[in-house]
Formats: sequence, structure tokens, C-alpha cells
Amino acid sequence: MADAGRRFRWLPASDWLASYNREQAAGDTLAAIIVTILLVPQGLAYAMLAGMPPETGLYASILPLILYALFGTSRTLSVGPAALTSLITASAAGTLAQGDPQLFIQAAIGMGLLSGLFLVAMAILRLGWLTNLLSHPVITGFISGCAILIAASQLKHLLRIDASGEELVTLAQTLAQQLPQTHWLTLAISLIAIACLLIPKYLATPLKATRLPGWLVAFISKCGPILAVLVTTLLTVSLSLDSRGLAVVGAIPAGLPQFTLPGLGREHWQSLITPAALLALIGFVESISLAQALAAKRRQRVDANRELMGLGLANIGSGLSGAFAVTGSFSRTTVNYDAGARTPMAGLLTGIGIALVALFFTGWFHYLPLASLAAIIVVGILPLINLSELKHLWAFSRPDALAMAATLAGVLLINVQSGLLLGVVLSVALFLWRTSQPHVAELGRIPGTHHFRNMDRHSVELTEEVLSIRVDESLYFGNARTLEDRIYDEAQAHPQIQHVVLHCSGINHLDASAMESLESLNERLKNAGVTLNLSNVKGPVMDVLVKTDFPKVLTGRVYLSHYQAMEVLAPDSLQEQDPDA
Amino acid sequence: MADAGRRFRWLPASDWLASYNREQAAGDTLAAIIVTILLVPQGLAYAMLAGMPPETGLYASILPLILYALFGTSRTLSVGPAALTSLITASAAGTLAQGDPQLFIQAAIGMGLLSGLFLVAMAILRLGWLTNLLSHPVITGFISGCAILIAASQLKHLLRIDASGEELVTLAQTLAQQLPQTHWLTLAISLIAIACLLIPKYLATPLKATRLPGWLVAFISKCGPILAVLVTTLLTVSLSLDSRGLAVVGAIPAGLPQFTLPGLGREHWQSLITPAALLALIGFVESISLAQALAAKRRQRVDANRELMGLGLANIGSGLSGAFAVTGSFSRTTVNYDAGARTPMAGLLTGIGIALVALFFTGWFHYLPLASLAAIIVVGILPLINLSELKHLWAFSRPDALAMAATLAGVLLINVQSGLLLGVVLSVALFLWRTSQPHVAELGRIPGTHHFRNMDRHSVELTEEVLSIRVDESLYFGNARTLEDRIYDEAQAHPQIQHVVLHCSGINHLDASAMESLESLNERLKNAGVTLNLSNVKGPVMDVLVKTDFPKVLTGRVYLSHYQAMEVLAPDSLQEQDPDA
Repeated sequence: MADAGRRFRWLPASDWLASYNREQAAGDTLAAIIVTILLVPQGLAYAMLAGMPPETGLYASILPLILYALFGTSRTLSVGPAALTSLITASAAGTLAQGDPQLFIQAAIGMGLLSGLFLVAMAILRLGWLTNLLSHPVITGFISGCAILIAASQLKHLLRIDASGEELVTLAQTLAQQLPQTHWLTLAISLIAIACLLIPKYLATPLKATRLPGWLVAFISKCGPILAVLVTTLLTVSLSLDSRGLAVVGAIPAGLPQFTLPGLGREHWQSLITPAALLALIGFVESISLAQALAAKRRQRVDANRELMGLGLANIGSGLSGAFAVTGSFSRTTVNYDAGARTPMAGLLTGIGIALVALFFTGWFHYLPLASLAAIIVVGILPLINLSELKHLWAFSRPDALAMAATLAGVLLINVQSGLLLGVVLSVALFLWRTSQPHVAELGRIPGTHHFRNMDRHSVELTEEVLSIRVDESLYFGNARTLEDRIYDEAQAHPQIQHVVLHCSGINHLDASAMESLESLNERLKNAGVTLNLSNVKGPVMDVLVKTDFPKVLTGRVYLSHYQAMEVLAPDSLQEQDPDA
Repeated sequence: MADAGRRFRWLPASDWLASYNREQAAGDTLAAIIVTILLVPQGLAYAMLAGMPPETGLYASILPLILYALFGTSRTLSVGPAALTSLITASAAGTLAQGDPQLFIQAAIGMGLLSGLFLVAMAILRLGWLTNLLSHPVITGFISGCAILIAASQLKHLLRIDASGEELVTLAQTLAQQLPQTHWLTLAISLIAIACLLIPKYLATPLKATRLPGWLVAFISKCGPILAVLVTTLLTVSLSLDSRGLAVVGAIPAGLPQFTLPGLGREHWQSLITPAALLALIGFVESISLAQALAAKRRQRVDANRELMGLGLANIGSGLSGAFAVTGSFSRTTVNYDAGARTPMAGLLTGIGIALVALFFTGWFHYLPLASLAAIIVVGILPLINLSELKHLWAFSRPDALAMAATLAGVLLINVQSGLLLGVVLSVALFLWRTSQPHVAELGRIPGTHHFRNMDRHSVELTEEVLSIRVDESLYFGNARTLEDRIYDEAQAHPQIQHVVLHCSGINHLDASAMESLESLNERLKNAGVTLNLSNVKGPVMDVLVKTDFPKVLTGRVYLSHYQAMEVLAPDSLQEQDPDA
């Protein structure tokens, strides 16, 4: 089995297909039917958000789902079009196309393809750790900013006015200008759609108290999009509202996607590299967080590198289908699981279901109002706005709050990619800054014990001849010179001392710059007639030290414990005050 | 006094001027005379290296020295033209000017001015820690690469052939092509100059054994440049070698610099920003390292932020004088100190000395061969090539070796700025990578003690119910998710455990992403029926933890020591095997 697992490591489907049974098939089929019904309006809505033709929302929900079912590792994650990735696509393709609608579509397809290639490359090069660059505050700021932008951008569909803008200021200005042109019929339909979306949500709690089966409660509470689509479409058709100015989806070409490569020049591809890389990171973080949360509930395990491969292939499949980038969807994944999905077969069947819709049922969506799609997007996205986190972070950690605020401001005031990039660069810079200013404590002995603690926090005994210093940070190029100066200054401030003992329990690593600084500190202290000693050096750090000449040039010694160092360097101080003596 | 110090904190000269005495004046005057004599040929040589007219080498040695004497903090550092900063100037100005000689000069002046402004801004914003971004391996790789490039670029003057190229491959190709055109008379003068440069160096050791005063020995051992200038100029004049094809400095306009601003357009300034920032960092690192080494010998102290101000004003002064960037010079600083300089007055007097040369003695350098200047540069720069460090680093730390190799290769094969930037970016990326993969140890108890150590390194006792894990790294966004997974997987691998105790002695910080991961780990373990406990939490980390809800949701407890945790969670394991029981 282990051998088989190794052989098919890029085809995780072999794991669950071998033991697939009738019970699983029943659950998966029911889940697939429900998710398909939910996915159609979502796919159309996210295609609209991405600025793409409606049919691409369906295309993004066929091949990607099938590929993820075969190559992904999460058993019930529902992959497909999603709000954040659609927004990033619209923003980057809009920047590239500069108003050329044909180029826009090609750029959006290229973004999906390229981000898929990035994900596969990250899987092969085992670069899953790169997603760690997106810190929690940066992600929160990014999602909140995107949600605000998305909600604002959909107002034009809810009111049928003509407003656009890549950042909030322009968008708000054009919205304010156009507000008097509000189309009242569209607004009425928007409000009906919003009511259809919200009512099932509020029914969830009372329904849970009834005897209805869990999957049915889950479906009813999530069926708002379907209800909104049904009600508003029926109203439009029966009252011929489209002839009275209500914008509708219109004709969607029936059929399956044609496989083509996007028609982009070399310089177009080059300018898509950075946004596609950011899209890949964001899409993956969204997907893996969801997959891990699901796996934890069922004591399963998600392999980040295999997950990268699964999501990467899904995105390549979407790009080749002429559609846009996909990722894991929170709402559909919940429905999928609650409706009984137990294996990726549910995803595969959903893909086939959407293919059937694309082949035979596109006509049903001709009279679906765009306002309903906008309402689906807005109601779905608003709960993601989490500005109170900023206040919470401010109390907890200023650098984290700063990173979130910068990301949020960047997304709202510049554009989504710049905001994300700003957040990443700032959080790395703040991390470097923080590790460059480590906590340094002067230690004293807790009377009568072998313990040495920070003199500022504990009541301790100090000795005249020995200065005990603990550095609570690994030594590396970012802080080596600063620490060298601080320790040296500390020694200068105590002219009577003869020895410095550096308590190394907080030092997890040493790099070449740190070794250089330790050697320089040793030399500077030697010129001042003071020896340098080390204590409590960790195993991995000692392994590094013995590779160098440092132990030979060290004026003092390396002691196993701080107490041992004091026994040798200042034995009187221990005996005098030791109550056991 | 403390108050006065505070009032004049940007004019450190007030510190030493108040107690200036006759003895100091005598030492400073002698040092100034000697350094002036040494600085003239060096200034001309570094102007040639920077691609600037010879008089700018003098201009860079007047006002900058006077400003540094007033505002710098190092007492004997000799500021002025230097090899690395001249090379960076030549490279960046060459890239901008694209062959336009007038634009080249303006760009070089702009670089000096801009890097001075950066340094002053860094002083005001207290950004001295930014120089920590230049790790020791990156600096070593950068200096070695520059030294090789400089030496190769000077061959054209040593052989009087026509070769150029910003990177080593082009340079080597054109040199190889032009080699047959070697001008033999120039080569002969070059060899004579090199002999003049090397002989005094080798005399230093035997002279030290004599009774000659120290300053004279120091001067003789460093007087090679003066000897080379004297001998080759006299040969040129007496044999009219310039009429036989030997290139000489030619007419240098007499007089003091005119103060002007460089004539550059907005886009020129913009394209100089990055190289000027790198120039500022490199110049400052060179200067501060030297200043700190000097201060340590005399138990003095250098304040990085005030030093930034001093060097920044010196560079602004150089730019306003129509000259190029300056920094601390190792060779002249040694001579300055050995010749008796005790206060910055020596630097001030040197500046006045060079001003006198610029006013009255420029004619003396008309017949100075360019080959002699090239020889001064090459002999000065060759000892800086330190390729063996690469081998040394490889044995000690692969990431450090990689950073040095990348910097070296970038400098040699692309250009100096790109090489430096590559090194900085790579060392930050490698640091993030390393901290994203921390050392995690499973702990056991050393029998009969209160100590818990890594089971892979020590012979320890393990318990069935409790998993003890120590993480040797601060938790931050770069490793939070990875660690969460590793600890969870570790717990999954021991199905019989009921408690996880996280030994936190190596955790120096927690950021918001880490808190998120700890909460998620707590939740995941709870779903698996396992409690999460913490032990040995450091003070600063505990301060952060209590600000959050985490202690309330934690399924286990926070224990002061690991032993206490085991006493509560697995008391049997301690009693059974405790030899004292």
C-alpha cells in the first residue's frame, strides 16, 4: 500500500476509488445535485464580477471540478468560481486591457492559466511555505478591502446606473454622480432578490429545532441564491420586465467549452506575472485554510504540496476552457458536506452536472436579472468585512495592526494587487525590524536557587564582577551588529565587571554575520579587559559553533548552565547568599 | 553638561572643541599634513575610477572633510573618495548616461547628493538599523566582486588599451581582443609604479624593529602612492614620456569648487533613487564598521544615527561641490591615527590642506601618468578580494554561502547595484525560509531530574499520555501555519496521548498569525480529544497571551515549568522512575 501510495502520489483519487461503495455513492450523488443547483447562479454571478461572459462561469465549473476531484487531497472541498479570485482577475485584466474588451477576456483567461502554472510549479519545487508570507492580518485586511470594493462595485447593477472605478474614491464619486439616475424597477427587483437571499438564512435557526434531516436544513438555509434566481426570473418573464429596462443575462451560448490558449503577446504575459502570482497565493491560502478546517473536523490530513498540485491543475483546466481562476468556495463546501458528500466523487459529479446545464439548460437563464446576480454577490461578500479586527489587533500588536491597515488602505485606494503587495512587503519589513531590536535582559539569581531571571521582572541578586545577559532572539545579520553594540555598551556601563556571560537559551540559530559579531564582541571586550562566556547554548547552535574557530579565540568558556558559569566566575556570590550553605 | 550635550546633539564638535589643547593641536597638524599628501593622489585616482574629471577628486576632499569634522562622531575617521563608492558611482551614472559624457558627470554628482540626503533622512527617522540588511556574506561577496571588477577595469590604463564593459564577461572579451595593442612604455611605467607601491609595504615589518617613531614607520609603510606619483611624474617630465604616448592627467583647473546643483530632469532623479540608496547603505556600512573598530580600541562609542548625519552632510557637501560620493577610507584612517590625530580637527585641517592644493598646486599633477593612478587603485583594492570566505561559509552555513555567491556573481555578471540588490533580497528570503522551518524537538525527562530534553540528543524517559514538544523559534506569520500542522501531525502520530505540552522557552515573540494558529491548534486537538498546555512561557510572550481570549479557550493550562506540567498531567510517570522516590 505504501508502495502504491508512492507510485500514485500525484493521483490521490486512487486512495478513495479503491474502497468506493454504494453508500458513499448515494451521499455523493445527492450532494452533487444540490451543489450543481447552487453553483449555476454563483458561477454566473462570479463571471459577472470577473467581467467575463456568463457562460465562462459555467466553464469554470466543469473541468476544474473534475481535475480537482482527481488530483486534490481534500475530500469534500468544493472548487470553482469565487468572489476574491474573480475580483483580482477583473482588476488585473482591467489594468492590462485598458478598455479593450477582447484583450480583457484573453487577459482574464491568461491569469487563470498562469496562476495554475504557478501553483503546479510551487508543488513541484515544494514551495508551499511561500504562502506563509501572507500573514493573518494581511489576509484579513485584504479580504475586508476586497469585500468593500466588491459590494460598492455591484451597486451599479443593483441600481442600474453607470459607475466604475478601480479604487474606492473614483467609484464613490461616480456612484454619487449617477445616483439620481437610479432605475426604480431595477432597485425593486434588487430588493426582492436580497429578501429571497436573507430569509432562508434566518430560517436556519428555527429549522434546526425541527425534525427535518440535517442536509435539508443546510440546503434550505443556503438556498437563497436559487430562490432569488427563481423568483426574479419568473417575475421578469411574466411581467416582461426586460422590455421595461431591467437588465438581464441574455442569450448564453449552449455547449461545452472549446479548448484554446489565450491570444496574448509576450509583453502581456510578462505584465500578468506578478498579479497571477498573487492570485495563485490568495487562491491557495483560501482553499487550503478551508481544506484544513474540514480535515481537522474529521481527523484527516491535507498535504499542502499535493493540494497545490490539485488546485493548480484545476486552474490550468479553467484557463484551457476559456474561463477564469477558481479556488475553494466556503458556502458550497459547507452545503456539499452537509448534503452527504464523502468523497471527491461528489465534485466530479457536480462538474458533470454543470456540463449538462451548459449543454441543455442555458436558455433558462436568459431572463435572469443582473440585479439578482449582484444581490447574490453582495449578500455573500458582506459578512467577510471585518474591520473590528483592526481595533483588536491594535490592542494586541501594533505592527500587525499596521500591516492590516496598510493592506486595507492599499486595496481600497490603489488597487487589489498593490494592496496585497504592500501588505506582504510591510509585514516582512516589520518582522525584520522586530527581530532587529530583540529583547535583551540583564539576569540575576533568584536567591537560593539555580535559576537566573530578568532583573526587571524578578527580585534577584546581582554580582559585581559578572554581567549576565540573555538575548531573546536568534542572532542573524538583521540584529548581529546592533546586539554586539548593546552588549558592549552594557559592559561599558558596568566598569567594575571582569566577565560577561551570555545566556543563550533564546538563541535558536546563528548565521555567519552573527559569528562575525560574536568574534568582534569577544575582541572588543578583550581590549577592555573583560572575558566573554556563553551558557545554556542549544544543541543546534553548539553544532554550528564548533565548526568555527570561535571556541578557540573565545576569551572565556562555554558553560552548560548559567549556574555552572557563576560557580567558576563568581563562586563567592553564590556561597554568601545561598541559604543552603 | 548633559544638558549641553542634548542641546548640541547635531554638532558633536562642541564636545571636543571645548577642551581642545596645544598637545592635541600638534598631533592633529602633523596628521593633517601627512594625510593631505596621501589624499591628493588617492583623490585623483578615485576620480578616475568614478569616471569623473581629476579636480573633482580634490573637491570631494575639501568640504566633505570639513563637514564630517563638525558633524561626525568618530574622532579620527578619514572621510573622502574611496574605491567602492567610486565604482558604484561609475556604474550607476554610466547606466543612466548611456554614453553622454555631460549627463554622466551630472548623474555622478546627483548620486552623491541623493545618497547624502538618504543618509540624513535615515538619521532623522532613526533608520540606522536598515544597514543591518547588508549581511556579512553579502558585504564580503560585494566587496570581492567590486575589487575584481575594479582591478580588471584598470588594466586598460595599466596597458593603455581600449577596453570597457560594465560586467566581467564583456570586459574580459574586450581586454583579450585589445591585448596585442599593449603600449609597452605605459606597461613599463605601470610596473615601476607598482614596485614603488609594494616596496614600502614590505619595509613595514623590518622598520618596526628599528627605533624610528611609530608615526614615521606608519607613514613610510603607507607612502607608496606618494613615491609612485613622484617617481613616475619625474620620469615623465624628464624623459618627455607624454609625447611618446604615455597618457597623463593633463591640465587640472586651479581653484575652489563652484557650488551648483546638478542639472538633471525629474526622470533622471527617479532612476537614481535605487542606486543612490544602495550607495548610501554601502558607504555607511564601510564608514561605521571602521569607526566602530577605531572606537573599540579606545573604549569610545559611535552613535549610528549621529554618524549617519555626519556622513550624510559630508556627501551633500560633496554633491554641492560638484564632486562624487565619499565615505570612510581604511588606509587614510590608519595613517591619520598613527600620525597623531586625536580629534576631528585633523580632518578639518586636511580639508584646508586639499583646498590649498586645489588653489595653488594643481599644475604639479599635469604630468602624472594615468598608469600610476591605476596602479594605486589596483594595489589598494586587490587585498580586498576574499574568495576563500566562500569555501569557509559553505562549510559553516549553506544559506550564507549562497547569499555570498549570488552577490558575487551578480556584481561580476550583471552590474554592481543588481548584485547588491540580489544579495539583500536573497538573504532576506533565506532568513524567512529558515525561520519558516523551525527546529521542533520531542522532549523526554532526563531520569531522576527536573530537566526535559530533546529525545534525539539525550537518553530520556517518555510518557504514554503526554506529548512534550519544544519549538525553537518565535511564532510568526512565516511559520505559524506550518508549526500548527507539524504539532497536530505529531499528536496524530501518537494516538494514545491525551495531552500536548508545548515547551515555549524558545519562543521569543508571538504575532497575530501565531495566535490564530495556536487557537486553531487548540481547536483541532480538542476535536481529537487532546488538551493543549503550555510551559516555560517567557515574560514578554505571557504579556501578549493575557491580552487575548486564548487563556480562556485553552483546553489545558499554562504551567510555569515543564516539570510542574508533568506533575499534574502524568504524575505516575514521575513517581515510578524517580530514583529519589
